[in-house]
Amino acid sequence: MPEITLELIREAHARIRGQIRRTPVLTSTRLDELAGAKLFFKCENFQKTGSFKTRGALNAILSLTDAEASHGVATHSSGNHAAAVSWAAGLRGIPAFVVMPRTASRFKVASVERYGGRIVFCEPTHQAREEAAAKVIEETGAALVHPYNDGRIIAGQGTVALEFVEDVPDLDAVICPVGGGGLLAGTAIAAKGLAPAIKVFGGEPEGAADTSLSFSSGIRQPVTGPASIADGLLAFVGDLNFPVILRLVDGIITVPDAAIAAAMRQLLEVMKIAVEPSAAVAYAAVATGKTAAAGMRIGVILSGGNVDLERIPWAKEVSV
Amino acid sequence: MPEITLELIREAHARIRGQIRRTPVLTSTRLDELAGAKLFFKCENFQKTGSFKTRGALNAILSLTDAEASHGVATHSSGNHAAAVSWAAGLRGIPAFVVMPRTASRFKVASVERYGGRIVFCEPTHQAREEAAAKVIEETGAALVHPYNDGRIIAGQGTVALEFVEDVPDLDAVICPVGGGGLLAGTAIAAKGLAPAIKVFGGEPEGAADTSLSFSSGIRQPVTGPASIADGLLAFVGDLNFPVILRLVDGIITVPDAAIAAAMRQLLEVMKIAVEPSAAVAYAAVATGKTAAAGMRIGVILSGGNVDLERIPWAKEVSV
Repeated sequence: MPEITLELIREAHARIRGQIRRTPVLTSTRLDELAGAKLFFKCENFQKTGSFKTRGALNAILSLTDAEASHGVATHSSGNHAAAVSWAAGLRGIPAFVVMPRTASRFKVASVERYGGRIVFCEPTHQAREEAAAKVIEETGAALVHPYNDGRIIAGQGTVALEFVEDVPDLDAVICPVGGGGLLAGTAIAAKGLAPAIKVFGGEPEGAADTSLSFSSGIRQPVTGPASIADGLLAFVGDLNFPVILRLVDGIITVPDAAIAAAMRQLLEVMKIAVEPSAAVAYAAVATGKTAAAGMRIGVILSGGNVDLERIPWAKEVSV
Repeated sequence: MPEITLELIREAHARIRGQIRRTPVLTSTRLDELAGAKLFFKCENFQKTGSFKTRGALNAILSLTDAEASHGVATHSSGNHAAAVSWAAGLRGIPAFVVMPRTASRFKVASVERYGGRIVFCEPTHQAREEAAAKVIEETGAALVHPYNDGRIIAGQGTVALEFVEDVPDLDAVICPVGGGGLLAGTAIAAKGLAPAIKVFGGEPEGAADTSLSFSSGIRQPVTGPASIADGLLAFVGDLNFPVILRLVDGIITVPDAAIAAAMRQLLEVMKIAVEPSAAVAYAAVATGKTAAAGMRIGVILSGGNVDLERIPWAKEVSV
């Protein structure tokens, strides 16, 4: 695996930009006042399929040789990556096999189906999922598209920050959520490549703080039983991503679920946009005040907007 | 009152554009497929104070002479116009007196307070509201800023369509909600002034269909007890606005509340944006299929996003 560089991210952008949205950057006077900083929100919730995951998935799938692509692609994420892989495979005209636990929500199943993914249900354990994916790949010859631990994915996700730093000059800091670490690693490479003085932060749920733990100790280590309403961020940070994060990222900020729900609600109420809990984490981290001194210009990556409206996670007791 | 012309709308735009947002136009592949048309959404839900009402209010308030403005402004709308007048008066550094019924929701009161409006509560009847407003104006010398039946307001609201037609060439049709008719009249003047072949439609709640009734008969007439979840559209179409609508608008499409709620939900789920019921009406009208032949390019004005999250109006039985 070659080192992921700004140049690879630029190549990824050239490969995918005709098919993805250049998402808008929104601002809010009221949230600036609350944060005591100037905030810029990069709205990947408006991206094709509803999240930034289209970028990495499309970059990976368009990077396959015809021979590699000839039997389709496979993945075993049940979330936004699965929808993105299904969509990107459809663009290339190849099948996408998606292994999902049979307990996956109707919302997630519907999303994969909408983009033409072929769902293979399995038991809801990590072992069953890996076995089912291996079996699908063996039977079909499909190429695995990993959700985060893959250079083509990291380069694709880095195109978010590439656009962001191009569109908003003089950002002092940029923050994005961290789960498996593909977005954070790509963001750090792109942002620091373009603007070496920029600070890069990751926002992580307290209930799934493996990256924070690993970052503090310098040794990649999982947490037991990760759990959070930010269901896209439960993955263990990848071994390709972690060294990049350790080298380039300035800090990981953890936030409790109540703060994530409050952030999600505030973005809906004030900015009029729907973001999913995993995306609200980055804004929740900024709202802690730990990212920046007063008056700084902070870029917040709102990574996705696929909210299951049957499960809006705020209760009346969550104050904003 | 001079005739409202495209030129007056251009002048209004020059007057206000430094203080308002040029709101983005968003699109959705999925909603295009559902509608069988190419839809463009002008997102006034992202406008300052959360609705297009800032445009007319700011134009009216900046048009006052120093003598007229010296004692502040007054209005008796309790919704988005009240917030917009409060905000615009603050920009000019003059007080805004807002007469609201004492039964107004906490959400609306908070919005007016946030922008510095001085609230005068009254009994929740039309007569009490008018009397209270007259008393405020008599006591303070404030200038009345009417929510819709005013040339400066119509010209200000027309700037939405001015930007829309500039930003999206070759629209076949444009649609916006109609309550008192300021937005619809301004939209028709601007859109047909810039592009004479464009069709202009109004979307109206079935429960408050006075404009539809008046448009069909050619005679301005109210309906008894207007009621709808689109609480911004209950006003009786103004006598200045109606002749403009009758002359320039191609049709009024009415929609039931269930369709309004479904439209609001679909915009949140698919487009990831919050719009209030009064704004969802225009999209609900398009979804009826009455605006356009297949494949047409339709501009939809999403007029505001001030959703009271304690009162989201869809129930599980509303299917989308």
